[in-house]
Amino acid sequence: MEELNQQLDFIMELDRLKGIYRQTTVKSDNDRYENSAEHSWQISLAAHVLQKYAVEDVNITRVMNMLLIHDIVEIDAGDLFAFSAEQDHAAQEEKEMAAAERIFGLLPEKQCQQFKSLWVEFENAQTIDARFAKAMDRILPLLQNMRNEGGSWVRHKVKKSQVLQRNNYLQGLAPGLWLYACEQVDIAVSKGWLIDE
Amino acid sequence: MEELNQQLDFIMELDRLKGIYRQTTVKSDNDRYENSAEHSWQISLAAHVLQKYAVEDVNITRVMNMLLIHDIVEIDAGDLFAFSAEQDHAAQEEKEMAAAERIFGLLPEKQCQQFKSLWVEFENAQTIDARFAKAMDRILPLLQNMRNEGGSWVRHKVKKSQVLQRNNYLQGLAPGLWLYACEQVDIAVSKGWLIDE
Repeated sequence: MEELNQQLDFIMELDRLKGIYRQTTVKSDNDRYENSAEHSWQISLAAHVLQKYAVEDVNITRVMNMLLIHDIVEIDAGDLFAFSAEQDHAAQEEKEMAAAERIFGLLPEKQCQQFKSLWVEFENAQTIDARFAKAMDRILPLLQNMRNEGGSWVRHKVKKSQVLQRNNYLQGLAPGLWLYACEQVDIAVSKGWLIDE
Repeated sequence: MEELNQQLDFIMELDRLKGIYRQTTVKSDNDRYENSAEHSWQISLAAHVLQKYAVEDVNITRVMNMLLIHDIVEIDAGDLFAFSAEQDHAAQEEKEMAAAERIFGLLPEKQCQQFKSLWVEFENAQTIDARFAKAMDRILPLLQNMRNEGGSWVRHKVKKSQVLQRNNYLQGLAPGLWLYACEQVDIAVSKGWLIDE
């Protein structure tokens, strides 16, 4: 019973990720900002649909689980825009680690450890599964911005080189998607949505 | 390339589920209504966390995949409140079947069939996996309403018997959770959040 209460507390804590907003907007819902909970849902399904583009074997169940939990730490740490300054990212990492301790720590010990190690694996991006999950998490905003007349790229004056660098996980891992991303970036430059310095 | 375009169209179509609102509210985000995309995310993780309460073997990967896609048909068919009239539910079923054809039909044939058959399995609720997925989908609003002073139950004058009937999937499949749900229903009645006729 104690264990069930811990699990239910964790599940209800998840509610708070619905109030963490990203820089991407939802065109079909009056261009409001997207939250990290619905983003996590979409990106898990995107990974499922695109799994065959990985040239190495990915364990899609692990990838999807990573993507479902990858942003939970934002409940405490907030969402940081991908193209913000480097020093902000270092501070963010510390906040996220503390958040992982607190939030996964709501669960019974064994489940806490399972989720935490899966989250750390995602963050470290050393395994094939983690790298594919990262690649998915990074190509989705590109797709969204392309359908939103440049979206957050335009608002934040993002450069072509930044987007290419960010999507670099695709290059070796899913060359078909990398090619597609490069083409899209060129289109975005031609439309003035990305800065080609 | 044709196949990739179909897959990306499907992934971007998913965006529209973020604009389909349910009767549940999100306390931590100014009590706004919850959308079906973020709900699908939370319920998949809830199933993962609560899988051990099933007394029969569930394939949690299949359950989570079902829950990730179970509401996609609402993009065309809209969300129907669980406790609305019976005739509304019959009409809704037709709309949802047409929606499944159209939306999963955006995908390449093989993936379309995979998702559609998984969705039909969920709807029919005959397999253990589908029944556990349904049970999860139904206990979560109960948990949310208990944390929201009765939430949608109060607004729609819902009866205790309706909630018990709706959560009946738990009874044989996850008796520990069924017991918990029954206790919560009694608390809700004592607080005046559910009608005990």
